[in-house]
Amino acid sequence: MRSLALPASLFATHRFAAVQRVTGVLLMLFSMTMLPPLLISLIRDEGVAYAFAEGLALTLLTGVAVWWPVRHAETELKTRDGFLVVVLFWVVLSTFGAIPFYVTHTGWPSFVDAMFESTSGLTTTGATVATGLDTMPWAILFYRAQLHWLGGMGVIVLAVALLPMLGIGGMQLFRAETPGPMKDAKLTPRIAGTARALWLVYVMITLVCAWVYWLVGMPLFDAICHAMSTISTGGFANHDASIGHYQSLAIEIAVMVFLLVGAMNFALHFVAWRSRSLLVYLRDPEFRAFAVTVLVLSALVCVPLWLSGTYDSFGTALRMGMFQLIAYATTAGFATADPTPWPAYVPLLIVLSGFMVGCAGSTAGGVKMTRLVLFMKQAMREMQRLLHPNATIPLKLGGKTVPDDIVYAVGGFFSVYVGLTILLTFVMIGTGLDPVTAFSAVAACINNVGPGLGSVNATMAGVSVFGKWVLIVTMIIGRLEIFTFLIVFTPGFWRR
Amino acid sequence: MRSLALPASLFATHRFAAVQRVTGVLLMLFSMTMLPPLLISLIRDEGVAYAFAEGLALTLLTGVAVWWPVRHAETELKTRDGFLVVVLFWVVLSTFGAIPFYVTHTGWPSFVDAMFESTSGLTTTGATVATGLDTMPWAILFYRAQLHWLGGMGVIVLAVALLPMLGIGGMQLFRAETPGPMKDAKLTPRIAGTARALWLVYVMITLVCAWVYWLVGMPLFDAICHAMSTISTGGFANHDASIGHYQSLAIEIAVMVFLLVGAMNFALHFVAWRSRSLLVYLRDPEFRAFAVTVLVLSALVCVPLWLSGTYDSFGTALRMGMFQLIAYATTAGFATADPTPWPAYVPLLIVLSGFMVGCAGSTAGGVKMTRLVLFMKQAMREMQRLLHPNATIPLKLGGKTVPDDIVYAVGGFFSVYVGLTILLTFVMIGTGLDPVTAFSAVAACINNVGPGLGSVNATMAGVSVFGKWVLIVTMIIGRLEIFTFLIVFTPGFWRR
Ligand SMILES: [K+]
Ligand SMILES: [K+]
Repeated sequence: MRSLALPASLFATHRFAAVQRVTGVLLMLFSMTMLPPLLISLIRDEGVAYAFAEGLALTLLTGVAVWWPVRHAETELKTRDGFLVVVLFWVVLSTFGAIPFYVTHTGWPSFVDAMFESTSGLTTTGATVATGLDTMPWAILFYRAQLHWLGGMGVIVLAVALLPMLGIGGMQLFRAETPGPMKDAKLTPRIAGTARALWLVYVMITLVCAWVYWLVGMPLFDAICHAMSTISTGGFANHDASIGHYQSLAIEIAVMVFLLVGAMNFALHFVAWRSRSLLVYLRDPEFRAFAVTVLVLSALVCVPLWLSGTYDSFGTALRMGMFQLIAYATTAGFATADPTPWPAYVPLLIVLSGFMVGCAGSTAGGVKMTRLVLFMKQAMREMQRLLHPNATIPLKLGGKTVPDDIVYAVGGFFSVYVGLTILLTFVMIGTGLDPVTAFSAVAACINNVGPGLGSVNATMAGVSVFGKWVLIVTMIIGRLEIFTFLIVFTPGFWRR
Repeated sequence: MRSLALPASLFATHRFAAVQRVTGVLLMLFSMTMLPPLLISLIRDEGVAYAFAEGLALTLLTGVAVWWPVRHAETELKTRDGFLVVVLFWVVLSTFGAIPFYVTHTGWPSFVDAMFESTSGLTTTGATVATGLDTMPWAILFYRAQLHWLGGMGVIVLAVALLPMLGIGGMQLFRAETPGPMKDAKLTPRIAGTARALWLVYVMITLVCAWVYWLVGMPLFDAICHAMSTISTGGFANHDASIGHYQSLAIEIAVMVFLLVGAMNFALHFVAWRSRSLLVYLRDPEFRAFAVTVLVLSALVCVPLWLSGTYDSFGTALRMGMFQLIAYATTAGFATADPTPWPAYVPLLIVLSGFMVGCAGSTAGGVKMTRLVLFMKQAMREMQRLLHPNATIPLKLGGKTVPDDIVYAVGGFFSVYVGLTILLTFVMIGTGLDPVTAFSAVAACINNVGPGLGSVNATMAGVSVFGKWVLIVTMIIGRLEIFTFLIVFTPGFWRR
């Protein structure tokens, strides 16, 4: 017979003690990120320092209160705890990250707006509900860009810590370096070391990006903020007109280049940097598919733009088409134009590009290029199977055989992703949006792109309160690649 | 070294002799189906007998010409020949079936229109480019319904002959009767016997349907034609207002019931008839999912229809909502109203229902309910796998473990289906349709439903010539569940 008596040490060593401890530590660490904007506000005397002080204090105190009771608990994180940590991490940090927005009221009249902006920041979505960015305090602009940057980096660190057991992501991240099957990977010193190396690459690329932005004519503060929101493929800009504010071809080209860098596998950057060789990229099947897809999509966007006379010259059509395509495809969502009135299929193709181009192990959203490559190969194999029912046909990627359970995971993931997008589109139509706008809003959030079409292009302020909550959840679901999020809501997860 | 000399007997025993022989025989058989409308026209003195006489003569002579040179060839059909036969069967019969439409010019000004009507008939799509049905000669109305009926039956016979090697379809069809793994099933006398039994069930259900239609007040000729286009889930009607012509609740209820019967697995009907038990249905997991899905979708359609005040009473909202939902979901596409102006997500949900409800082994189109059930189970298993990475979790359906390669096939199929729908939607947007209309047209054709939304609801006559050809191919691709069609266009298929 089971004992009904509660153990005396329940609150110190309960089942989720390890989860609680990690969450507390994360909150304390996160509170420190309010310091830079706090300092900026004080230095520039912008009068919003109180908002970041309140945010810092509330987050830090909560973190301590969560961590303190279990600080001595010696339980370790189990496989299933990892999922809970990830989901809590994103929900809790999005909530506490909203405090400065909510307290200032500058562009966020209610809590849902503040939460939307914060979640949009951390998930590197970049959809905004604020306007008046051109006159916004620097502290707030910096804070927004920093949320992106933390979210982008966070995903990679999380990938290192958690994705090996999720299948494709972790495998892709370490494929270039680590031998052996990835599901055996634990947080060993070696992998933690790799995570630190990737972190270093991330910082360095961001610094190079800021420097280049400054060289091609961006003001220094904008260069720093936009570098953070570029490498994280976030898309928050310091101006209502986004990158269109500068009307500079040089800046647009620089942004496109660094967006593509951010949407590529950072493990590739790391290996390329260590081996001082660009051949690393060319040897990677995901990169090759990425490059070809971006070129094909650009052609499919620019040619009708030119033929339809939307812009008066081929050069302008190319410039506008490629920027918008790359900004959406890399899931950043920067803009120099609103593609909604563009001809025929072009606006929808741009929205669709957000699903497919981002690479595994990058800061980009979407279903990830590797999965699409595996899926195409699977479809081809399926047809071979029909012709040769008794043949065993291995599925190869970059010369290596991909285990069948990973191919399984891709099929399931892709189907759930599409199903959820359709379901959420229907929900958003229910909140009063027309079908195309609703689809574009859901695609923009689930892929962490940011802007949609029509009334949800420049700002999502016009969406209903219920719709905003739906999109907030959508952004987190997209960032966590769905299963990590859904699994926490299955009964099996909570069974002992 | 290979010999470059051609064998003397090339034209009698070439590689595809067996395919050629079967195609010739099929054409000769098909020419006989022009006899009933020919007789109807002669008896009623409608003046279109010449059209069917020309169709009969041309089809018969071509069939003889194709068959004659290889009549003695003793090669047998190989696995890959099966695919070629199926694709040829649909393309060739759709072409020859267009002759009577083209020759009469009654409602089909050009060949593409005639071909569209014929393909729409044989694939049981039921999209029409003709108007003026109310004054159309009976011979033509009968011929249209008969095309549906042949197409519906044909699919089942083809399933018997060919689907075992395609995975799910054949397995589902014989699951109720045949032991052992289905990929070993060949065209044995026993299976041919089963095919004949299914054919008998099909004829009998059609007769019962016609009788019931006549009982509830349909004129006898309409009852016969509509029975054929109901059981085949085709959807061609004898009136421009479709079933709405009768303004009769009794007729609408009868149509809904027989549409559901047509969209169910005919192997189930067969077993239920033999065992004189309705429990057969309740024990089938696909039927249960089918019933629940139809009920849930009906609620999701009828409730907003009622709350929005689209119809003045709940009763009318229920009547209109359920009829349209069931007509689309069973992929027949009969109508008593145009759902385009219905509120919020309702029109798109109705279009979407065509993808999911039809059962394997039925006459309906779409991705088939069994595949959706397998896919949901796969998604659940995927999450269990994440929690228990080392566990082996079998995927069960109706108490039996489904082999992994069939689950693979489902994932691949579903993804290709969605991908192709998106691609074709973009092509149709390119022909000048707006995104929602384009999507509804592609969905209506790939799922073999028929009517879309807006300008492609009542008739597809307004689609451009190029667009019509795209939709013709789409209907055939949908009917052949994509892979059978695509495989014939892969280089591997033609390799010796
Ligand atoms: K992003
Ligand atoms: K159908």
